[in-house]
Amino acid sequence: MTSTTDPTTESAVPSQPQWGSVSTSGHWTGGQRTEIQARQFEFVVDEPAKLGGTDTGPNPLEYVLGGLQGCLGVVLNTVSNELGYSLDGVEVTTTGTLDLRGFAGVPGVSPQFQKVDGEVHVRGDLTEEEFTRLIDETERRCPAYNLFKDSGVTPEFRWTLNS
Amino acid sequence: MTSTTDPTTESAVPSQPQWGSVSTSGHWTGGQRTEIQARQFEFVVDEPAKLGGTDTGPNPLEYVLGGLQGCLGVVLNTVSNELGYSLDGVEVTTTGTLDLRGFAGVPGVSPQFQKVDGEVHVRGDLTEEEFTRLIDETERRCPAYNLFKDSGVTPEFRWTLNS
Repeated sequence: MTSTTDPTTESAVPSQPQWGSVSTSGHWTGGQRTEIQARQFEFVVDEPAKLGGTDTGPNPLEYVLGGLQGCLGVVLNTVSNELGYSLDGVEVTTTGTLDLRGFAGVPGVSPQFQKVDGEVHVRGDLTEEEFTRLIDETERRCPAYNLFKDSGVTPEFRWTLNS
Repeated sequence: MTSTTDPTTESAVPSQPQWGSVSTSGHWTGGQRTEIQARQFEFVVDEPAKLGGTDTGPNPLEYVLGGLQGCLGVVLNTVSNELGYSLDGVEVTTTGTLDLRGFAGVPGVSPQFQKVDGEVHVRGDLTEEEFTRLIDETERRCPAYNLFKDSGVTPEFRWTLNS
């Protein structure tokens, strides 16, 4: 993930898979609460009281959306570094909408997100053309974005530059 | 998400969508690092130094996998409560495998997970038949599991009971 290869140049790119992996473990502690271990880090997943939890941490889907937002940050930064763009700030808001009947077990209703949308506000010394390329490359190369896209729920982000 | 409706009974289930939403915001702080706000909680997304980060928190995909694990915990607990099953413990390990060429921008290579697998060890006073039903209901109703499944990367979990 540290490649500085220009993404538009097909020469000198590996033709064989370059496998990488990510591993975590989860320890359910009762109720709606699970402790996650990821390398040296630990984080707590829980639900608020109204959803039967003890509200000691974000809920599972908040982590999934936060992971998407962090992933956008990593790819925006990586692509900007590759292309020599100057990035001064990124703010992302995201909302995922679900039909709760799916979680409740109603047959035929998907439990996963029906829609994901939000805004990405970028600040930087970029032309409109560079900004468009940055968006395109980020959406093309972000693992979490493509997890959603491949699931049929492409995140609908409104991207703004310096506004 | 607090329904106690028996999932096999179609009577008394809502026929109209029951919309729920989850929202988070992300503030990129430079490099590979983003701070996420989810209700009253904040968590940090970063990358280890070898991936250009400052290693101040889990990376984006660790949060996504942790969210999946926490989601399994919530649904296992919820379904067990509904069906009167006694659940004593759940341990989940998960590994996501990627072809890093996708992130690096190699045309035609997907950046998202190529495979997700792991183990779910359940302890509880369950018959084999009850355990099978618990797995089926959980995989059917878990939002994060179905995000992966719908993306074409169904998590391949080996489920064990009291072993």
